[in-house]
Amino acid sequence: MMPTILMPLPGNGAITADLAREMNAAVRIPDIRHFPDGETYVRLDLDLHGRSVALVCTLDRPDAKLLPLLFAARTVHELGAASVGLVAPYLAYMRQDRRFHPGEAITAAQFASLLSPHFDWLVTVDPHLHRIRALSSIYEIPNRAVHAASAIGTWIAAQVSRPVLIGPDSESVQWVSDASRLTGAPVVTLRKTRLGDNDVSLEEADLSAWHDRTPVLVDDIISTGHTMLETIRLLDRAGMPKPVCVGIHGIFADGAFEALSQSGSRIITTNTIPHASNAIDVSPLLSAAVREMAS
Amino acid sequence: MMPTILMPLPGNGAITADLAREMNAAVRIPDIRHFPDGETYVRLDLDLHGRSVALVCTLDRPDAKLLPLLFAARTVHELGAASVGLVAPYLAYMRQDRRFHPGEAITAAQFASLLSPHFDWLVTVDPHLHRIRALSSIYEIPNRAVHAASAIGTWIAAQVSRPVLIGPDSESVQWVSDASRLTGAPVVTLRKTRLGDNDVSLEEADLSAWHDRTPVLVDDIISTGHTMLETIRLLDRAGMPKPVCVGIHGIFADGAFEALSQSGSRIITTNTIPHASNAIDVSPLLSAAVREMAS
Repeated sequence: MMPTILMPLPGNGAITADLAREMNAAVRIPDIRHFPDGETYVRLDLDLHGRSVALVCTLDRPDAKLLPLLFAARTVHELGAASVGLVAPYLAYMRQDRRFHPGEAITAAQFASLLSPHFDWLVTVDPHLHRIRALSSIYEIPNRAVHAASAIGTWIAAQVSRPVLIGPDSESVQWVSDASRLTGAPVVTLRKTRLGDNDVSLEEADLSAWHDRTPVLVDDIISTGHTMLETIRLLDRAGMPKPVCVGIHGIFADGAFEALSQSGSRIITTNTIPHASNAIDVSPLLSAAVREMAS
Repeated sequence: MMPTILMPLPGNGAITADLAREMNAAVRIPDIRHFPDGETYVRLDLDLHGRSVALVCTLDRPDAKLLPLLFAARTVHELGAASVGLVAPYLAYMRQDRRFHPGEAITAAQFASLLSPHFDWLVTVDPHLHRIRALSSIYEIPNRAVHAASAIGTWIAAQVSRPVLIGPDSESVQWVSDASRLTGAPVVTLRKTRLGDNDVSLEEADLSAWHDRTPVLVDDIISTGHTMLETIRLLDRAGMPKPVCVGIHGIFADGAFEALSQSGSRIITTNTIPHASNAIDVSPLLSAAVREMAS
């Protein structure tokens, strides 16, 4: 069988190279650029006929990325590829899955139904499954959600001595409990109340049993960083050492990374979104899923 | 019959208000904003059941605008509107209508086929029809292309004494000849050679017969402004007075407006794209087309 062709959208070169090494896949860099008027130009390698192609495009800050991605997917089809899949290490629009208020757009379902017709399969890393229980409830194409927990657990076991794992809220329980199984470290879960896009409050917890351990915060997404910052402050008030903060997906909205770094904590992410904080490589996990879907 | 509901996407409030006044239509402002992570939130007025709705969204710098627009269109449908049309005073992706080089995305056709399923009709102003002869050759939905020439001709006749109309290239012939019919002004058309996205050259022309007239350059799109700037320099070398530059669509890529203004010329556009240079109102022309399509 011919090896899968990996095609990175702009900004996805590093993880694509890692994936290609893991999978022994070919990489083709498309020519994608902007005209002065803001329109996108796309030109692909010709030799795609009959091949299995995977477009690699992480979807943080998704709005401006969608059109170039769909142009590329259609063109891959038009050039005769046997199949075209999407590797989106971070998948966007997983939060608004219903009308919380009348008249709202259900963007999770709408985004999924815009992407699905253009791809034969989808692979991502830890999508924000909360009320949406499974990717297949909104994506009608074959899909795999890779779990970063094993890579995170391995990293913590190797890099942090005597960790205590802290989940900043009930949604983060899944990440900290997986990491706990791999490291044997104890777990504390806090309770978060969301007051607005930029405002959260956390309930105090009794941490007196863990003062001799390094707190490791684990959460799936670091966006504004407010949840992590509140947790860091709470740990400080409780007399704990400076924590290590681990996010699977480091979105880091305006100034979030700087604010977190100024707290004196160490900030670590996986490489699903390229960032200086990337320290945990998910490409070995991704490669198994891509190999399975693209075969 | 209930009046049409006009719904402006962000940044389209001014022309929507003008249109509403012309059409005696209702305006509903949707709640569209960005979360800190760059995703878009959309919430619409509920009272759309059975109504004819027109979304107003000019499509310069189109990539980041597409997703909010499609979210809004789907939600209008879901809320039970009888029809939803698109008023795009400037329509993007009208240039790449074939593969000039192997492997290129034919973005004109792809963009049209992404938009078309979401709308019942389309109204725009002077799309860049060059190799594409008619909007209907790529847009499968009912559509109208409004011509700004009459509004431009009226403006020139009222504002410029003794004009000579200058078309910077063969594509601009249609705009200058229409304006000439309305103003009775003579016409000179230059010949342009495009050397790259940012580089054009113009052939000299004999302008000695028109030294006592004010040159008025007319073109459909001002993007980088290089074509206009080259024309201004050519007129200067030919000893002509400073020209008035009229563009239907003022995109003004990085610094283009400043560079053109520094030439000492007066820069005028229609209000298809909001800009300080807007002086010609196309809403009376648009309103007739919208009324026809939305009825």
